[in-house]
Amino acid sequence: MSMTRGTPSKVAPGGTIGILGGGQLGRMLALAAARLGLRSHIYSDTDPAPAFDVAHERTLASYEDRDALARFARQCDAITYEFENVPATAAEVLSAHTPTHPNARALAIAQDRLDEKRFVADLGLATAPFAPVSSIEEAGAAFARIGRARAVLKTRRFGYDGKGQAIVSSADEAEKAFQRFAVPCILEGFVPFAFEASVIAARAMNGQFAAYDPPENMHADHILRRSVVPGRLSADAGVAAKSIAQRIADAFDYVGVLGVELFVTGEGELIVNEIAPRVHNSGHWTLEACIVSQFEQHIRAVAGWPLGDPRRHSDAVMENLIGADAENWPALAAGPGALHLYGKREIRPGRKMGHVTYLSPRTTPASGG
Amino acid sequence: MSMTRGTPSKVAPGGTIGILGGGQLGRMLALAAARLGLRSHIYSDTDPAPAFDVAHERTLASYEDRDALARFARQCDAITYEFENVPATAAEVLSAHTPTHPNARALAIAQDRLDEKRFVADLGLATAPFAPVSSIEEAGAAFARIGRARAVLKTRRFGYDGKGQAIVSSADEAEKAFQRFAVPCILEGFVPFAFEASVIAARAMNGQFAAYDPPENMHADHILRRSVVPGRLSADAGVAAKSIAQRIADAFDYVGVLGVELFVTGEGELIVNEIAPRVHNSGHWTLEACIVSQFEQHIRAVAGWPLGDPRRHSDAVMENLIGADAENWPALAAGPGALHLYGKREIRPGRKMGHVTYLSPRTTPASGG
Repeated sequence: MSMTRGTPSKVAPGGTIGILGGGQLGRMLALAAARLGLRSHIYSDTDPAPAFDVAHERTLASYEDRDALARFARQCDAITYEFENVPATAAEVLSAHTPTHPNARALAIAQDRLDEKRFVADLGLATAPFAPVSSIEEAGAAFARIGRARAVLKTRRFGYDGKGQAIVSSADEAEKAFQRFAVPCILEGFVPFAFEASVIAARAMNGQFAAYDPPENMHADHILRRSVVPGRLSADAGVAAKSIAQRIADAFDYVGVLGVELFVTGEGELIVNEIAPRVHNSGHWTLEACIVSQFEQHIRAVAGWPLGDPRRHSDAVMENLIGADAENWPALAAGPGALHLYGKREIRPGRKMGHVTYLSPRTTPASGG
Repeated sequence: MSMTRGTPSKVAPGGTIGILGGGQLGRMLALAAARLGLRSHIYSDTDPAPAFDVAHERTLASYEDRDALARFARQCDAITYEFENVPATAAEVLSAHTPTHPNARALAIAQDRLDEKRFVADLGLATAPFAPVSSIEEAGAAFARIGRARAVLKTRRFGYDGKGQAIVSSADEAEKAFQRFAVPCILEGFVPFAFEASVIAARAMNGQFAAYDPPENMHADHILRRSVVPGRLSADAGVAAKSIAQRIADAFDYVGVLGVELFVTGEGELIVNEIAPRVHNSGHWTLEACIVSQFEQHIRAVAGWPLGDPRRHSDAVMENLIGADAENWPALAAGPGALHLYGKREIRPGRKMGHVTYLSPRTTPASGG
């Protein structure tokens, strides 16, 4: 008797999930797939890649290599990504051969900060004030219109962890920043928020939706340092945050896990900052605090399986290990947290090397997903 | 800066743990190693092997192949086993090149039911009455001496999951069973126990000891079906059980996780049934109910790391998926448990295909390890 009978939309145990991207998110996705008896095939353009260490199959090739992409796709039963900046060509080649999630439209919108803001605003959800900037003149005019005391000029594409961003305090600074970037940008008015939060949620092929309790997130130098659940978000705001994620996921006809980063104002208003069409750093605590982690949840969705229960049994604090933080591994290993190291060979400043999750008994009643 | 500076006794992140055996225990050990940023090299004599799917390196060779063993050992920073029936030659070749745990003496004693019983009895711990049987005459005489109404004749070596065992109710039956086995045996008097339990414990290189709360175990056809923690073991008996495991581990100068299977009598007496010098099926619930699972605990010990906190944050029930149980995976995936499938391609009767763990809030106070 074989375990491996699947259907076109459901990958049975023994099947292979293809993952584009070889970083820590791909690695934790591969580990989650393994728990379900699924194999993983990692496609990465760099070696060593943290995810290669735990993959059943490995492809080392450029994300623009159509032949390699097609060969990879033919060996997989379903395909997904660990990062949003997947070239459009890659998404097109992969999905021509094999079911690929999330879909090309969700990826395309999330790749472009301007399209993303418009998409969110069109859903009637709150965003920072924003304006497209494709010329020096537009930069100055946009600041005059929405900048107030300060604003952020961001490249429309390929930004992450604060890269491709400049805080500007005048029309002149906005113009100079645009000249430096020299690519299409978006100017975002500064939102005076009380704190940051995020929703990590999943949508299955049949529309089933499940959201984890939203953590409060602390950043330093544009990099996530800590996620805390429960944070300062009220129970009502938590419900509202999950509903925002559901509206976005439904509008995308999304399959998989997505992260929605939120600003929370002093009045408790939720302002959508960014959509990550993938598993998200602020959801790493689900590995310990929930029966089904965000990584397994994503694999379940992509493989056509039912979603797992997103409820958490514990409170959790997740601390990122950035750069030299990881040198502290012997002490962290002796401490009370769950230590995760990503297998990166070299420590570099700003590099995400691992994380630690601390659990404590639940302080608030368990809520549904 | 490199992550990979180790010491002779401590394997740093980026180092490689060699694991002899490619089954589900090796697979879960490899997954645990990955969480700590360690690579795994799986050595198995069969392909496909569940652990190959998640390994950084794979060696397919006989456990008697001295050249392959030596080559494997030279590529690893520390070596361990997923099964106790490692040929003595293998242990010798491996440990000549690379620190190998548990040690050869622990393996040798655990491989021989008679040596194991003598070792346990010499520690002053309770065992079933037993006698060596190396001839037909001894079979009958042994039954007359210790058999009472019934006894179990077991081959001294290479038994597991009930293989190499015969229940006998007379001297005549004991003799016939011995003739059938035709290898050195041990006769064990039947112990009228109330239930079965086990201790999963770990000992580090520096003698640090940590034990998980002992589960109650239910078997059918000699195969573990279910582990429940807390089970019927009283708090006092739990402490006594951990102390038994510690005495055994200390006497072995053991490094790694070991499982000690216990009979618990109606009077609450603990009788040592068997020692497993490896991670143990009745400890799988630690993956969800503890910050550090038995698999990570074993890797930590073998790599020279400090042990993790063995306390559980939840009550747990672990159900094995045996043979065709695994066909039920779609319903199990939709259920409330943590589903684990081992990636075995073929379902066979009696084969361990996966397990499911159900958590519930802790009903008894957290106890130390």
